[in-house]
Amino acid sequence: MLNVTIWNEFVHEKIHDEVKAVYPEGIHKALADGLQSPEFHIRTATLDEQEHGLTDAVLNLTDVLLWWGHMAHDRVDDAVVSKVVKRVQEGMGLIVLHSGHFSKPFKALMGTSCDLKWREVGEQEILWSVNPSHPICSGVNSQIVLDHEEMYGEFFDIPTPDELIFVSNFEGGEVFRSGCTFKRGQGNIFYFRPGHETYPTYYNPEILKVISNGIHWAATNAYAAKPVFGNSQPLRSLEVLV
Amino acid sequence: MLNVTIWNEFVHEKIHDEVKAVYPEGIHKALADGLQSPEFHIRTATLDEQEHGLTDAVLNLTDVLLWWGHMAHDRVDDAVVSKVVKRVQEGMGLIVLHSGHFSKPFKALMGTSCDLKWREVGEQEILWSVNPSHPICSGVNSQIVLDHEEMYGEFFDIPTPDELIFVSNFEGGEVFRSGCTFKRGQGNIFYFRPGHETYPTYYNPEILKVISNGIHWAATNAYAAKPVFGNSQPLRSLEVLV
Amino acid sequence: MLNVTIWNEFVHEKIHDEVKAVYPEGIHKALADGLQSPEFHIRTATLDEQEHGLTDAVLNLTDVLLWWGHMAHDRVDDAVVSKVVKRVQEGMGLIVLHSGHFSKPFKALMGTSCDLKWREVGEQEILWSVNPSHPICSGVNSQIVLDHEEMYGEFFDIPTPDELIFVSNFEGGEVFRSGCTFKRGQGNIFYFRPGHETYPTYYNPEILKVISNGIHWAATNAYAAKPVFGNSQPLRSLEVLV
Amino acid sequence: MLNVTIWNEFVHEKIHDEVKAVYPEGIHKALADGLQSPEFHIRTATLDEQEHGLTDAVLNLTDVLLWWGHMAHDRVDDAVVSKVVKRVQEGMGLIVLHSGHFSKPFKALMGTSCDLKWREVGEQEILWSVNPSHPICSGVNSQIVLDHEEMYGEFFDIPTPDELIFVSNFEGGEVFRSGCTFKRGQGNIFYFRPGHETYPTYYNPEILKVISNGIHWAATNAYAAKPVFGNSQPLRSLEVLV
Repeated sequence: MLNVTIWNEFVHEKIHDEVKAVYPEGIHKALADGLQSPEFHIRTATLDEQEHGLTDAVLNLTDVLLWWGHMAHDRVDDAVVSKVVKRVQEGMGLIVLHSGHFSKPFKALMGTSCDLKWREVGEQEILWSVNPSHPICSGVNSQIVLDHEEMYGEFFDIPTPDELIFVSNFEGGEVFRSGCTFKRGQGNIFYFRPGHETYPTYYNPEILKVISNGIHWAATNAYAAKPVFGNSQPLRSLEVLV
Repeated sequence: MLNVTIWNEFVHEKIHDEVKAVYPEGIHKALADGLQSPEFHIRTATLDEQEHGLTDAVLNLTDVLLWWGHMAHDRVDDAVVSKVVKRVQEGMGLIVLHSGHFSKPFKALMGTSCDLKWREVGEQEILWSVNPSHPICSGVNSQIVLDHEEMYGEFFDIPTPDELIFVSNFEGGEVFRSGCTFKRGQGNIFYFRPGHETYPTYYNPEILKVISNGIHWAATNAYAAKPVFGNSQPLRSLEVLV
Repeated sequence: MLNVTIWNEFVHEKIHDEVKAVYPEGIHKALADGLQSPEFHIRTATLDEQEHGLTDAVLNLTDVLLWWGHMAHDRVDDAVVSKVVKRVQEGMGLIVLHSGHFSKPFKALMGTSCDLKWREVGEQEILWSVNPSHPICSGVNSQIVLDHEEMYGEFFDIPTPDELIFVSNFEGGEVFRSGCTFKRGQGNIFYFRPGHETYPTYYNPEILKVISNGIHWAATNAYAAKPVFGNSQPLRSLEVLV
Repeated sequence: MLNVTIWNEFVHEKIHDEVKAVYPEGIHKALADGLQSPEFHIRTATLDEQEHGLTDAVLNLTDVLLWWGHMAHDRVDDAVVSKVVKRVQEGMGLIVLHSGHFSKPFKALMGTSCDLKWREVGEQEILWSVNPSHPICSGVNSQIVLDHEEMYGEFFDIPTPDELIFVSNFEGGEVFRSGCTFKRGQGNIFYFRPGHETYPTYYNPEILKVISNGIHWAATNAYAAKPVFGNSQPLRSLEVLV
């Protein structure tokens, strides 16, 4: 049983009718429903809660954290960001969704601007697996067609991913590295692009399957043994000491 | 001054009128003309020449070898393939173009099937740089639009590239890792996708610029010092010997 | 339950008393005993058997193949090598041990010479994990001390590994990338250095733990869905066709 | 002609006699002297200067910045750190030396703790090239022996390097990934381990050669064209818009 915490800034859904129509109870609720499984114990957390719902207690028992944010990145408290980053480095899995590319935790873990091209006209996106035997692709079709999505285009300013899993084709002509994994410290990170707030992407069974696979993959090291650092004794006798 | 050898099977251009119309003297001649530079000494070689034009003398003084083949992969002699592979491992650069993905030297160096999806209807291809500060992208626009090309689609069965440089968007919906680098032994390898025989791709200045950059990049190690292998003396006294 | 096949050339153990003393029934038998687990169904195969014990029937039901060879690499039939390589590309896991670095299947999958430095004086080797949260390191100490081993030293002529897991320190002063993973097609490959035939390395519980972890890791894709290749229909209408 | 700025905290050399004896005018001065070349225009900068000597003017014309720091990491102003990080992301090369692994700019660019094991007894270090045809190894012997150095041991908590260049063997039994490259944004980063303040490492011609090669390698993108980000027009007509 994996402890999964879904964090959503939950702002668009309250103030934009177009978004509310798609996700009336919030993106986090749609994801929590769609990801339901006997293998997951899912909780949610949002910006307006105390400590954004990410108290030490919650973070310490979270195996995998999902992160969706967009218009309120700057309102996320730096102290919470530091704790999230530290927990990832200690082994908590992190799945960063869509506009979370510009979130504070993701940028801190990447060390780059995480900038990209974008266009919001609702064009078609097709995601292709370039690593079909990766556990994140298990049981997922080799292409996933989303009739309407926001476009994200290259150059996506991230470090070279440890593994490239999905690449998107957008109808308007762009491409994007839509599924990328990274390891930072002991923690597994999966960035997954789809999920603009005005489209029902998080009700798509293929997308939910990818995220579900991502959770299983990212959970592996949640409580990995901390590596030993610091001053160390030699394992052999040293001539130089003579 | 770099010694560049352009190898072309040179079969389509002799027997298919459609191809002859585009490359009347062969793809190798079009490339040799288009890549002309005071920095390159270019020669060409083709299947029908003695040893396919790739004698020891030619290979030993080649800094970078370009390879275009398609319908006659099987007619390339295994002894020549072995020599090409060995020279790459010793440091000769290799640029594999388009349908060369299925050539014997490329498959031997990759260790995979190098298979892919394809479609030949002349649709639009747009190549995007995902590594814009790489030397191969120097002076190249962030996207290259080819109005008509053959489609190659993922999954492309290659090992994880050392560096991913270009990704293509095809009008029909596919994506492809169109520019990939690999190192095998001391040799730099650049696979570059565009160049179907029925389209004037190798007259396109942007495509020629990428190939030219690729030659400079791949040439770096052409005559690198051979690493030392074999039985070695210890650099320290060994307690175990006592 | 994973089907594990341990292949050993089984020559040293028959003709060299020093080796027979350590592995009286062969390295394959010591490994089969040491790796026993309710999760593994283990069989062995050796050079002198019909088709080296690697018939189609055996290969087709093998999830993970272990390979130990040294003095008889050249006696392995090329037809068997081709089948092994093809099964790896289709998803069978492969664990290449010690002097298997020069085996035909490993060289064919790598596309490099796989050469290295070596010294056989029985010095101390210490393996360090450089990827401690990788599944192959699960439950393994951060360093493994082997009192006596053959030395392998860099430069090890392999492609850049997908993942570097262990690096060895040798008493005489060398280092070696002792644990490396690669993917070729759908198949996971793990190269693991220790295991010279004159030392009791394959009785060491830490070494057996690493190999056991490697089997679990490599087995993931043993029967992965074959990617779709070949001629493909467009997913969108094409203007170029008009 | 490359503009090289060598930054050194320059604290040990003022207060510790043992260090002053080795680097009487500071590590930065020893490096500036040792790296002298018609191809470099070298300046130095230290902690106690205004803005630590890293004004906008200096950073904007620096092609490659070298960084040595140890006991005063915390005294480096966050505003300067932000500027350094931004210039690297824009293309300035960065060479991080030895204890700079814990410097603020390096940690911000890596997104990890950058922690490690260490021991300060003056044991022997041998660096081995694991990427001998990389430009950073050009003209450098395959092993570099340093009679006395501080030990740094794995696990070194960094992201997977884009390229691994050197691995060290320490007499006491440890190994370390001593030469690693990373790209962040447009900027090339080279971490190079040796250089404890109490040893004359930066007078060693082999070490200076590696650093000099590193400067040439890292300089490539210093003023690369900025990628285009933000809202983009489609390159094709979109059916969805109809």
